[in-house]
Amino acid sequence: MKNNKCVLAFSGGLDTSFCVKYLALEKGLEVHSALVNTGGFNPEEIELIASNAERLGVASHSTLEQTEKYYHDILRFLIYGNVLKNGTYPLSVSAERVHQAVAIAKYAKEIGASYIAHGSTGAGNDQVRFDLAFQLICPEIEILTPIRDLKLSRQQEIDFLAKHGVQKSWVQAQYSINKGLWGTSVGGSETLSSNLPLPESAYPNSLQKWGAEKLEIEFDKGQVCGINGIQMSPVNAIQTLEKIGSSYAIGRDIHVGDTIIGIKGRVGFEAAASLLLIKAHHVLEKHTLSKWQAHWKEQLANWYGMFLHESMYFEPVMRNIEGFLEDTQKYVSGKVLLTLYPYRFTIDGIESKHDLMNSKFGSYGEVNQAWTGEDVKGFTKILANPMRLFQEINGDEN
Amino acid sequence: MKNNKCVLAFSGGLDTSFCVKYLALEKGLEVHSALVNTGGFNPEEIELIASNAERLGVASHSTLEQTEKYYHDILRFLIYGNVLKNGTYPLSVSAERVHQAVAIAKYAKEIGASYIAHGSTGAGNDQVRFDLAFQLICPEIEILTPIRDLKLSRQQEIDFLAKHGVQKSWVQAQYSINKGLWGTSVGGSETLSSNLPLPESAYPNSLQKWGAEKLEIEFDKGQVCGINGIQMSPVNAIQTLEKIGSSYAIGRDIHVGDTIIGIKGRVGFEAAASLLLIKAHHVLEKHTLSKWQAHWKEQLANWYGMFLHESMYFEPVMRNIEGFLEDTQKYVSGKVLLTLYPYRFTIDGIESKHDLMNSKFGSYGEVNQAWTGEDVKGFTKILANPMRLFQEINGDEN
Amino acid sequence: MKNNKCVLAFSGGLDTSFCVKYLALEKGLEVHSALVNTGGFNPEEIELIASNAERLGVASHSTLEQTEKYYHDILRFLIYGNVLKNGTYPLSVSAERVHQAVAIAKYAKEIGASYIAHGSTGAGNDQVRFDLAFQLICPEIEILTPIRDLKLSRQQEIDFLAKHGVQKSWVQAQYSINKGLWGTSVGGSETLSSNLPLPESAYPNSLQKWGAEKLEIEFDKGQVCGINGIQMSPVNAIQTLEKIGSSYAIGRDIHVGDTIIGIKGRVGFEAAASLLLIKAHHVLEKHTLSKWQAHWKEQLANWYGMFLHESMYFEPVMRNIEGFLEDTQKYVSGKVLLTLYPYRFTIDGIESKHDLMNSKFGSYGEVNQAWTGEDVKGFTKILANPMRLFQEINGDEN
Amino acid sequence: MKNNKCVLAFSGGLDTSFCVKYLALEKGLEVHSALVNTGGFNPEEIELIASNAERLGVASHSTLEQTEKYYHDILRFLIYGNVLKNGTYPLSVSAERVHQAVAIAKYAKEIGASYIAHGSTGAGNDQVRFDLAFQLICPEIEILTPIRDLKLSRQQEIDFLAKHGVQKSWVQAQYSINKGLWGTSVGGSETLSSNLPLPESAYPNSLQKWGAEKLEIEFDKGQVCGINGIQMSPVNAIQTLEKIGSSYAIGRDIHVGDTIIGIKGRVGFEAAASLLLIKAHHVLEKHTLSKWQAHWKEQLANWYGMFLHESMYFEPVMRNIEGFLEDTQKYVSGKVLLTLYPYRFTIDGIESKHDLMNSKFGSYGEVNQAWTGEDVKGFTKILANPMRLFQEINGDEN
Repeated sequence: MKNNKCVLAFSGGLDTSFCVKYLALEKGLEVHSALVNTGGFNPEEIELIASNAERLGVASHSTLEQTEKYYHDILRFLIYGNVLKNGTYPLSVSAERVHQAVAIAKYAKEIGASYIAHGSTGAGNDQVRFDLAFQLICPEIEILTPIRDLKLSRQQEIDFLAKHGVQKSWVQAQYSINKGLWGTSVGGSETLSSNLPLPESAYPNSLQKWGAEKLEIEFDKGQVCGINGIQMSPVNAIQTLEKIGSSYAIGRDIHVGDTIIGIKGRVGFEAAASLLLIKAHHVLEKHTLSKWQAHWKEQLANWYGMFLHESMYFEPVMRNIEGFLEDTQKYVSGKVLLTLYPYRFTIDGIESKHDLMNSKFGSYGEVNQAWTGEDVKGFTKILANPMRLFQEINGDEN
Repeated sequence: MKNNKCVLAFSGGLDTSFCVKYLALEKGLEVHSALVNTGGFNPEEIELIASNAERLGVASHSTLEQTEKYYHDILRFLIYGNVLKNGTYPLSVSAERVHQAVAIAKYAKEIGASYIAHGSTGAGNDQVRFDLAFQLICPEIEILTPIRDLKLSRQQEIDFLAKHGVQKSWVQAQYSINKGLWGTSVGGSETLSSNLPLPESAYPNSLQKWGAEKLEIEFDKGQVCGINGIQMSPVNAIQTLEKIGSSYAIGRDIHVGDTIIGIKGRVGFEAAASLLLIKAHHVLEKHTLSKWQAHWKEQLANWYGMFLHESMYFEPVMRNIEGFLEDTQKYVSGKVLLTLYPYRFTIDGIESKHDLMNSKFGSYGEVNQAWTGEDVKGFTKILANPMRLFQEINGDEN
Repeated sequence: MKNNKCVLAFSGGLDTSFCVKYLALEKGLEVHSALVNTGGFNPEEIELIASNAERLGVASHSTLEQTEKYYHDILRFLIYGNVLKNGTYPLSVSAERVHQAVAIAKYAKEIGASYIAHGSTGAGNDQVRFDLAFQLICPEIEILTPIRDLKLSRQQEIDFLAKHGVQKSWVQAQYSINKGLWGTSVGGSETLSSNLPLPESAYPNSLQKWGAEKLEIEFDKGQVCGINGIQMSPVNAIQTLEKIGSSYAIGRDIHVGDTIIGIKGRVGFEAAASLLLIKAHHVLEKHTLSKWQAHWKEQLANWYGMFLHESMYFEPVMRNIEGFLEDTQKYVSGKVLLTLYPYRFTIDGIESKHDLMNSKFGSYGEVNQAWTGEDVKGFTKILANPMRLFQEINGDEN
Repeated sequence: MKNNKCVLAFSGGLDTSFCVKYLALEKGLEVHSALVNTGGFNPEEIELIASNAERLGVASHSTLEQTEKYYHDILRFLIYGNVLKNGTYPLSVSAERVHQAVAIAKYAKEIGASYIAHGSTGAGNDQVRFDLAFQLICPEIEILTPIRDLKLSRQQEIDFLAKHGVQKSWVQAQYSINKGLWGTSVGGSETLSSNLPLPESAYPNSLQKWGAEKLEIEFDKGQVCGINGIQMSPVNAIQTLEKIGSSYAIGRDIHVGDTIIGIKGRVGFEAAASLLLIKAHHVLEKHTLSKWQAHWKEQLANWYGMFLHESMYFEPVMRNIEGFLEDTQKYVSGKVLLTLYPYRFTIDGIESKHDLMNSKFGSYGEVNQAWTGEDVKGFTKILANPMRLFQEINGDEN
């Protein structure tokens, strides 16, 4: 039999604040708000959101601390895979939202709720991510989506809240910002166009350093383990890189791509740590993986990124791909040397005992002992065989 | 019956100068030197190389002007395909060398030579590219490779030339430079290491502009057709972009990858036009191609790049891939807006009548008429079906 | 402004007969029934269906003859691509239904109907195929799906028809059969299980020949152009092969796979012509395509089959893939020799002037002139390079 | 310092018998012959080969028993992957030869030989497989290949042996047969043509049963574990299936494909156990894997087969692919029901507790509770979005 407990994914914004009141007053539910922290909130922000929830009169409010688990379950695979959607976007929001949806669903199950709610509209990707995770993890719990169903304007939501005693100035920011461990997304009127860039002021951080700075990132089996010679956990390393990189305004770009619901979307982002880590990791792999490891990793990793973006995180093949990606990282260890400049960085080189370039075996373009020009002649002759054959049979049309 | 005509791919450097004398004097051949221009040489350089050849006493010297054909046969497919090897390198040398080898082989056939020679060593990719093209295009002509076969030191080559009256100061440049229409490669002691970047001075161009500059690139069915509002041919556009971009020192990077002979190689490059064009074209495609067009194009284009690099240009599938790539460009038309800065550029947006984002149909994240929240609920429910089924059957292990 | 014209995809069965009466009487529409013939119906069947429609009182009935167009637009690509879903199923129903939906939508547009109806239930693939084609080809026409919406039992439909004067014995066949140019599907209680095969009697044809019979199929650029030495059109060849092959009960199997709506489905089929053609064409390709043409064709063709099955026929990439597949068929010409036996066939060999095996160049395993053992030694040495390098650096763990 | 120990891969045929004498007498080496048994030889054959070696005067002869290891290291991955090269050939010889080469190389290392020899000619795949494995596993040991280097005729070899006291009638069989655990290959004059099938008599086994027989194969996580209800090891199961299947002359076909040296090759084979196992395993997977697991498995497995065939078994990515394939087999457990007939078999169904078809969740084509027709309407609408958009923007050209 159903109880009247309802878990609500709560962010403290207008939409989810409306949901608290609406679910309690119009639906008669006992609202248990929950905030999932995947590294996007600092303690002050977490505290503020909790007190906002309480002021709205929730039955309970919980903060689900998931940063380490988020890295372990998702981010490390994005690094192993050098995943940049469409060659650009580190999937900052996609990864985070899927992980948050899972955490909320598990929490609802844990406290035995009969209802689970999110505040997504009917226009974006997040509704699919929440719905899908909820259906899979807690199929027995009923999903409520007041914002999507009621299609209210901002003003209608504000009026409803005011009517029920919630007086607050709900200033609409010029840019909608989503800040997380893996990057910050920025939407605004420009990103609704195709031809306008975001202005400097739209980004949450601003350029603070104008010189050049050396940076060393160390990896152990594909996982970051040190920055500038100091050993640290991956999550700490990401936060450290974000601090350093964002002071150079590194990692800004605009992502254009396909949304889950099939239309094109455009969004700005700033993701210093993701870009630094992925590009550094990729160069280290160029030195330590074989040609065909790199080839197949790219195929599987790009698919992984696409499916993660589209909330297909739960497809069984995703677990198989995670296993494959991890398996390829056995020798991806060493240091990557970078230089940071305003708005950009260069990768200067790597040092690794698994470096396939540093070899007595022979250097590219140099005289060597491992093979002879005669060997290459034979190699080329055999390599040419199928093409010679084709030409002989089908004429020189080809 | 064999004659004693020998076509030699001639660049004017020490190795091919040695070949002229060696083939004539030691092999008794009538040496016909040929330089293939794929856009890397200006008229003065072409003139100088011709006079050098004549001074060496060749039977004839020809300049094979191939710039337009090079663009048409190879470069446009690299642009259609957004081909950057390992995410970085525009294949500047790979593309050029293959095309040059083809031109030399056809020339040898044309003048009825019985021998064809190149000056590559036994250590690099170029020997394979020359050998393979020669074997396929003129299998009846014998290939001679004195440099690879004799394995002489620089000094031995210089001494041989001096002995035969060629007195010249063969200064060895600190960096070996290969300049072409599609970019300039830079090799030096640093690129033989894994951990050293190239110094600023290694690059042939230097930063000349310090401000910011708007740039507009126009495409018609995937081919560049205008720069800053001025219509021009693709080859002119590439040359124009190279001039503008290199004044900002744009397009520098280091490529690390697998050579044809199976070892890792590292090489610097500067390729302003290639990078500007490919990145601009790619963003235009993000707005004008469907999700699965983008997906399959990427698969086929990366393969095309790999095979081109490895001198598998003659594999019949390459012609099929070229057809596919061209076929996808039907609606890839419009303008791309960029801003150039020292060492970097941003892509600010695009304008195209085929832009799939600019639509009455609906904007991402905005309320719209084309579908409802209910539709998305149904969509998500059906999307979840196989995963729910898997979970129901196999428990929540997944 | 809407009129009351409604085009109905009509097959003459209980469901679409119910739709005629229901749309006319309950919805007040002028019902224009249409049957699409993609080769599954003979003239008598077509006549019978037309008279049934008229007896039900339709405003008009049309037969849309699409057999040639069906072959040209879809089937030839399935042959070029050797498409057998999951290695087994020639997509007999999938291909046909998509093509029929397109024909119905175009007809509705042509006669200016405001409504378009199909009789699919809410449980299968066909509803998606019809809905999707209708939405894309005639988005301005409203879709009606009485069977899906009303969820009536067979008896309720029969009663409704009887009440409105349609007295007929609607015998339910033990097996539901869908007969088309590209094969016949067979569903029954066994195919709803996982462990039962279909009995011999479930198949529409029965074994009529017990000996062995030679068969020769001729292809011209991938298209069948002759059977046993007699030149004929592809459609005639398919019908001829079906007649010959089904007398040997060839081409029977059970397909198990993923439906569009995400659950697994199992269906029997008999498709003699498809199997004979695809297998023969495939062997001819093994002799005439290069290794990498075969490789990439397989990738793209399997994707084409999957998307066709899932009614993604309209994705723009499908046109690009069709172009690619056709482009690969340039030299796929020649004769394929088969022997038919009861329930099976063998492919005995091929004859083609583009046969890459019949060459002066060298025979596999035989002494030859085109290369030497020394060449192969060199080839193998270079081939081993990256693996030797990996081993040298990372020890013999690999 | 080099010793004069030489390990020779010995099969007892004319070529390797010649090698024994040649290496001993002309090269002055101490010949240690070794036979690798990967399941192709019975005790009598092993005994006969050993006595032949001794009669030739080898310093020692060893039989390296590798059947279990062969299954564990290679065959199980071919079953996990349903690997049939070009849709046909189970890679019977390719897999075996690579494994044998590895065993010989390790044996040579173990006994401290300075030389390692094989009897392959310069015309086929096997020379590459031996050379490559030897170079990678024992790079310090010199490779000798008398047959390839001397290019003697059969008669010259026979004369040489006779001169050195080896009198034996070296009857040349009409068909060259290679029998192994994973199948028997058959070469003859017909397989050197493109248009002739092998006659019945060319196959080593003959049809012995004319009726129909039920067969049940049981799998546990992708590995065969029982036949007809009797539990047994995979190797025993393969041998049992071979016995049963070959009495029905099942598993015969002709493989046409690309050899390592780039020309086309054609070879007959009979491989009852491989075909029965792979087809049965594949059907079990159709019931137990998700759509995208099946998709990616196919990609990786086909690549695995190609690389194994081409002796790229040592590429590091092969270990990653093996890991992936094994990882997908978690739920591939259950029974597969078959019926055997002369020359063919049918797969009648499967039983598995991981069967994704046997579900309360809903049956394909039947009314169900898990979703509604409305859900499918919404699904189809969203699915159509990108294609509607494309059509709206680019007209109905598509």
